[in-house]
Amino acid sequence: MRILFVGDIVGSCGRRCVRELVPELRSRLAADVVVANAENAAAGLGVTERTARELFDAGCDVLTLGNHAFRRPESYDFLDSEERIVRPANFPRGSPGRGHAVVAVGEERLAVLNLCGTVFLEAARSPFAEVDSLIAQLRDQGVRHLLVDFHAEATSEKVAFGWYVDGRVSACLGTHTHVQTADERVLPAGTAYITDVGMTGGRGGVIGVRREPALERFLRMTYARFEPTDEDPWLHGVLVETKGDGRARSIERVAAPLAT
Amino acid sequence: MRILFVGDIVGSCGRRCVRELVPELRSRLAADVVVANAENAAAGLGVTERTARELFDAGCDVLTLGNHAFRRPESYDFLDSEERIVRPANFPRGSPGRGHAVVAVGEERLAVLNLCGTVFLEAARSPFAEVDSLIAQLRDQGVRHLLVDFHAEATSEKVAFGWYVDGRVSACLGTHTHVQTADERVLPAGTAYITDVGMTGGRGGVIGVRREPALERFLRMTYARFEPTDEDPWLHGVLVETKGDGRARSIERVAAPLAT
Amino acid sequence: MRILFVGDIVGSCGRRCVRELVPELRSRLAADVVVANAENAAAGLGVTERTARELFDAGCDVLTLGNHAFRRPESYDFLDSEERIVRPANFPRGSPGRGHAVVAVGEERLAVLNLCGTVFLEAARSPFAEVDSLIAQLRDQGVRHLLVDFHAEATSEKVAFGWYVDGRVSACLGTHTHVQTADERVLPAGTAYITDVGMTGGRGGVIGVRREPALERFLRMTYARFEPTDEDPWLHGVLVETKGDGRARSIERVAAPLAT
Amino acid sequence: MRILFVGDIVGSCGRRCVRELVPELRSRLAADVVVANAENAAAGLGVTERTARELFDAGCDVLTLGNHAFRRPESYDFLDSEERIVRPANFPRGSPGRGHAVVAVGEERLAVLNLCGTVFLEAARSPFAEVDSLIAQLRDQGVRHLLVDFHAEATSEKVAFGWYVDGRVSACLGTHTHVQTADERVLPAGTAYITDVGMTGGRGGVIGVRREPALERFLRMTYARFEPTDEDPWLHGVLVETKGDGRARSIERVAAPLAT
Ligand SMILES: [Fe+2]
Ligand SMILES: [Fe+2]
Ligand SMILES: [Fe+2]
Ligand SMILES: [Fe+2]
Ligand SMILES: [Fe+2]
Ligand SMILES: [Fe+2]
Ligand SMILES: [Fe+2]
Ligand SMILES: [Fe+2]
Repeated sequence: MRILFVGDIVGSCGRRCVRELVPELRSRLAADVVVANAENAAAGLGVTERTARELFDAGCDVLTLGNHAFRRPESYDFLDSEERIVRPANFPRGSPGRGHAVVAVGEERLAVLNLCGTVFLEAARSPFAEVDSLIAQLRDQGVRHLLVDFHAEATSEKVAFGWYVDGRVSACLGTHTHVQTADERVLPAGTAYITDVGMTGGRGGVIGVRREPALERFLRMTYARFEPTDEDPWLHGVLVETKGDGRARSIERVAAPLAT
Repeated sequence: MRILFVGDIVGSCGRRCVRELVPELRSRLAADVVVANAENAAAGLGVTERTARELFDAGCDVLTLGNHAFRRPESYDFLDSEERIVRPANFPRGSPGRGHAVVAVGEERLAVLNLCGTVFLEAARSPFAEVDSLIAQLRDQGVRHLLVDFHAEATSEKVAFGWYVDGRVSACLGTHTHVQTADERVLPAGTAYITDVGMTGGRGGVIGVRREPALERFLRMTYARFEPTDEDPWLHGVLVETKGDGRARSIERVAAPLAT
Repeated sequence: MRILFVGDIVGSCGRRCVRELVPELRSRLAADVVVANAENAAAGLGVTERTARELFDAGCDVLTLGNHAFRRPESYDFLDSEERIVRPANFPRGSPGRGHAVVAVGEERLAVLNLCGTVFLEAARSPFAEVDSLIAQLRDQGVRHLLVDFHAEATSEKVAFGWYVDGRVSACLGTHTHVQTADERVLPAGTAYITDVGMTGGRGGVIGVRREPALERFLRMTYARFEPTDEDPWLHGVLVETKGDGRARSIERVAAPLAT
Repeated sequence: MRILFVGDIVGSCGRRCVRELVPELRSRLAADVVVANAENAAAGLGVTERTARELFDAGCDVLTLGNHAFRRPESYDFLDSEERIVRPANFPRGSPGRGHAVVAVGEERLAVLNLCGTVFLEAARSPFAEVDSLIAQLRDQGVRHLLVDFHAEATSEKVAFGWYVDGRVSACLGTHTHVQTADERVLPAGTAYITDVGMTGGRGGVIGVRREPALERFLRMTYARFEPTDEDPWLHGVLVETKGDGRARSIERVAAPLAT
């Protein structure tokens, strides 16, 4: 199975990258399925039904979220009803949405799990204990291909988590920092790993938002409203190929500028 | 000099406490001057010209701020022009407002300094180095009475700061946590100290905001809008008495419910 | 039932306060049971079997811990075997020790729960969800008197937690900040509450440790070894009185200097 | 000028990478000067005179540090006397060591600046204000080639800092996360930039330390001693080429395994 994973899509610029680049990438990379992180899809903060549908229409099969999952109360009903969008599984039980999705990919099934780190970020339960119970549950259902979007800040937590799930999931892909790392590889027991896949949006900003307000906060500590930037749009992601038993064969980085 | 210091005033409920209680307290406690923390005066976040004027009119002589000082861009001009309101002195040079004020109190002068801690909070410069230069500058001007509003989260930083300025300022009064502490005392070298003076607003909420949205965030991690509560309004503060040389004679806690 | 709760005991100075003051306080306050936080008992960091036994011998019936619970690997077996010492219940399942204890107090039983906050601190599960299941379990066992040591940093989390358990536990007592707060009261539904009971140790230091190394870190950021101070020893705690149904009748602060 | 910058050297494994790989890389890449981050050189925490000398002997011309700069009091005199090692310039004035070094590279001079971020990390002054005054000072001295090791956690702060110094320094190279990022490029105004150059040490661990204790802390929250790992050693760094005016011509990532 060939899986294209697209990193945090930021605002309208990021959505445009998806609309214009995903169909071509899907075909050029012979991807069987596309998973994308949409936690910043709606004006940089959270996702709405409209922006999610735009991403599905552009060819995304499953959407993941992160610490901004619940940023838009108007989306809670949508998170409850739409099975192809997942928010961190270790967020509180009883909160909107679900923590994993299982989709058919050809003859196979792919489970997409979303988990949030707890170093510098918040969750309701440790992602380490949570992933154990999710893996057990999905194995019971006979699902062999599992992809984890591990949405976390600290490299220590992400690298440790990769080792922890190595051999138990097909891919452990980090998101949240919005900067692609260069450490992609298949770990010894067969899990495709990268600390962060990077962001889809304007590279000319500060991790997706306009430079001026971002700098104003650092320089003056004044309250400048953050907005997604349109400058220098790129799609960042990875392509993971798995074998029939669910183990990863390869992982390669994707970094594609939007011709402008 | 008898100084009444009023802790973080939260929203309209907090401002009502000030309007209705400060005149009476001022007279009952024979306060010569009233200083109040206004960082939450405008709907719980920051201060505006209108809310500041309401507090001046109610008898506050000087207002201090904190980490929410710059939450309202519409107030920046006011912070620049009004000399009786101060924001953390260790915020960036060139940002709106100023870090200390000197007011006449009878024949004497009182300097009010605002500084922000850096443990779990942000500032541009260490409050420890900053207070040294401010004290030197004010001593040069012959000011003998110095009051520091030390706006900080961690008790370790607040207690350490108290020891650091002991004997060099008249009072080092903690703000920010919105819960009054019971450790008020005059330190050995003559500085009146309390870790936190507490909040002025609805005790029936969660440090001044309505219980429901606060609990919703902890229980569900969903995005509930915080609003000041009106339930069970109290004014919290301290009364500090200084001697002619600027040293503190006494500090006592003030906790006054608003008769409702 | 009259419960004396003693706040974070810091090092040998704190243990001496317990040895010399608890017997007298127990009798003067007619306490039926003594619970104490021992997370800093062993040289300021964690607890050992020897220091715990010293505290039991001095009249403590149950000991609680906090974020420093696992600081001393040599104590893990002791935490497993000694039923009168509890560490945060929301620490990982399978880690040393247990999260609650039930002790006989006259004809009654008292459950002591330890929970750790997650704002600025770490735990494996949300204390809010965790306390629900613990309360249900203890109610099933017919235990009517429940005391929670809520070990947390942020006042927002502590106040919210108090409201959350109001009417469901006899007392919700905050620890960790080492500074006693002045907000003790019985909440409307019957839970005795205080944001922090304060520390038992040298008030002449910085929340229990010697001033010099603490200041050195703030002033120079150099690596100074923290040690408990012996200067100006005090015991801080609260006395909670409960009714037969487990509800609180009263809570009052205790602050006792060690005559030196 | 061709500058090889080597990322955080962790423990004896990292030092061995430097000893065995730097001479070869220096020659193969035709590097004129080698700068390396040594904040983890001594058993993973801080640096000592002995480990620093080992790195100088292996061909490093200048060493930088970071948040662990002051972890070893026995090194303070060495930091004061050795001009080729720098600690964050925005650490407190009067603390050991210095914040920048100027070395001769052929006919030219290269200034190496070390600055520490303040998001999730601590410093005494904002790196943004600090870098302005350092740049001004070095320009006054006629130094055209400036390299900043910006030791920071948050990608937002690092990317913003890069934009802030673009055109004013030759290179702004991120360190601290120990994972190399894939975003190296010359920014529009001529500054070579990368969010993080990555680590030099065992890739088989968790950002340089052994897997088992790292996982134990995440899984059980128990106190396991961290030690550098020897497993799968790699050197990570970047090669920056500058032009005569100090602007960057190119930046390329270096990732070299130690043949074992
Ligand atoms: Fe995120
Ligand atoms: Fe994101
Ligand atoms: Fe505040
Ligand atoms: Fe406040
Ligand atoms: Fe603690
Ligand atoms: Fe403690
Ligand atoms: Fe570091
Ligand atoms: Fe490092």
